[in-house]
Amino acid sequence: MARPAPDSVTRVASIGAGPIGAGWSAHFLARGFDVTAYLHSLDELPAFKEILDTAWISLEALGLARGASRDRLTITGDLEQAVSQAQFVQESAPERLDLKQDLYEVLGETVPADVVISSSTSGLTMTEIQRRCSTPQRTLVGHPFNPPYLLPLVEIVGGRQTSAEALEWARDFYAHAGKAPLVMKKEIPGFVATRLQEALWREALHMVANGEASPEDIDTALINGPAPRMAIQGQCMAFHVACGEGGMATNLDQFGPALKLPWTRLDAPELTPELRDRMVDGCNEIAAGRHFEEMAAERDRAIVGVLKAVAAAKETRER
Amino acid sequence: MARPAPDSVTRVASIGAGPIGAGWSAHFLARGFDVTAYLHSLDELPAFKEILDTAWISLEALGLARGASRDRLTITGDLEQAVSQAQFVQESAPERLDLKQDLYEVLGETVPADVVISSSTSGLTMTEIQRRCSTPQRTLVGHPFNPPYLLPLVEIVGGRQTSAEALEWARDFYAHAGKAPLVMKKEIPGFVATRLQEALWREALHMVANGEASPEDIDTALINGPAPRMAIQGQCMAFHVACGEGGMATNLDQFGPALKLPWTRLDAPELTPELRDRMVDGCNEIAAGRHFEEMAAERDRAIVGVLKAVAAAKETRER
Repeated sequence: MARPAPDSVTRVASIGAGPIGAGWSAHFLARGFDVTAYLHSLDELPAFKEILDTAWISLEALGLARGASRDRLTITGDLEQAVSQAQFVQESAPERLDLKQDLYEVLGETVPADVVISSSTSGLTMTEIQRRCSTPQRTLVGHPFNPPYLLPLVEIVGGRQTSAEALEWARDFYAHAGKAPLVMKKEIPGFVATRLQEALWREALHMVANGEASPEDIDTALINGPAPRMAIQGQCMAFHVACGEGGMATNLDQFGPALKLPWTRLDAPELTPELRDRMVDGCNEIAAGRHFEEMAAERDRAIVGVLKAVAAAKETRER
Repeated sequence: MARPAPDSVTRVASIGAGPIGAGWSAHFLARGFDVTAYLHSLDELPAFKEILDTAWISLEALGLARGASRDRLTITGDLEQAVSQAQFVQESAPERLDLKQDLYEVLGETVPADVVISSSTSGLTMTEIQRRCSTPQRTLVGHPFNPPYLLPLVEIVGGRQTSAEALEWARDFYAHAGKAPLVMKKEIPGFVATRLQEALWREALHMVANGEASPEDIDTALINGPAPRMAIQGQCMAFHVACGEGGMATNLDQFGPALKLPWTRLDAPELTPELRDRMVDGCNEIAAGRHFEEMAAERDRAIVGVLKAVAAAKETRER
């Protein structure tokens, strides 16, 4: 079987019964795919079904794709059967390199030629995972964010032997499947989102270790400060829009020296003219000609909605 | 005038016409207070009114307090008149130490005795600002997050001469005024939220400088990954709940070694038994007996609402 067009895929295989594997199964079912789930042991079935039940509540609330149904799920303990008809494979096996290498040796032979195999790995690189695979050019990482059935991000990155075409195909397929794909420029540990989150997490641990804040302080600060805004504008655009007409250029030219202040334990990079321009150009590209007032108004509408949504979600608790 | 009970305050003064000062005026008006705004120059009036107009759209959407009205705003260019009847003063003057020290020298004499004076400063310490104030015990920092009329966080911290009573009063008053107050344990640069945000920001700049990601990649990753979840659970509780029954203890005991991986340029703190226990105890306190499944369900409801709210806010743009 040749690689189908990304938007013509109807059958996917999901390997793994944990929160990530079961979460992917739920996501693909909700988007209207036929899903074959491979469980390493059928003992995992109750836990798998429980995750699916939980996920389905939210997926229904978000809105299912036309024709989406849990009846389109096939569960099997036979790996070859799981993948033999698949047009795309999402692999979420345990995070052990030897185990994944063994698995990709098998998948390299059993998954139809050219069909993309995407790993949910968060800590391993595809260069390592694909080492013993006979068809490594179509293997890559498609790293989701937990819970994978709700958060749209998928970080895509290949290993040394992955083809550029496979990466492009994966980007288009994930977009077709309702995800927000991000194709990484380099194979770096932690991808983009986890690196950013990890920097924040380490600063938080330092603060708790030094008696500067409690875990509750950390969470209160995030929930009531940056988070509702970050759901509509990432850190780059939040600063760009906050600086009005001057945007990111004003932010860096005016507050650049503040980068050297001891406002975190992470050392600042050198603010070279090149870095400045990359930041400014990048923000202007995202803005795509929109005026900062328009973007600020959109931000405010979103924050109002986010605050209301969070309050509504808590209502059950407080009753 | 003695310090009134925090929940009996009806008249506040807001000093400053910039986005922060005007934003505070809008917030207090929406919560039903009489507000006197001090503008350093009446030339600032058009910009001040524009911010108020913009803020009011969102504040009405969120729901005004009973009796709230823009008619309850008085604008003046006379500082003494602005503060002489105030039961609380929020100061958002420009971020220059000499200017703030001069201002607090005047406010120390003109603001009624014991009435709390709270600074919006993000980069200066109250220990420095209050140095020439004759009544420093009632001066403190109440640092908002932009936009201050929408994001609930207020980080409260005193200077060396601030009284503990004033800090407690400010916490209670801000809570009464619809804010989420966080009283800081120490006077550290960047407070809690900005430190966390700054760690993330510096990692982002490093990634752009090294060609690992573009500003658009950074924002795509945040918006579609950690942000929608962080609006309901901060980083501590996100990890606590993601680890199921084992919670934060499992997170630290199992993934502790991963702290040493090069997943950010920020060095990890030593994961001492004491730090581990503080994190675990802190998360259990926030959970307050709730089962992780209940918290995961609340998280999922909130994320669904957040995603819908952000999509709705963008609808105008895409039409």
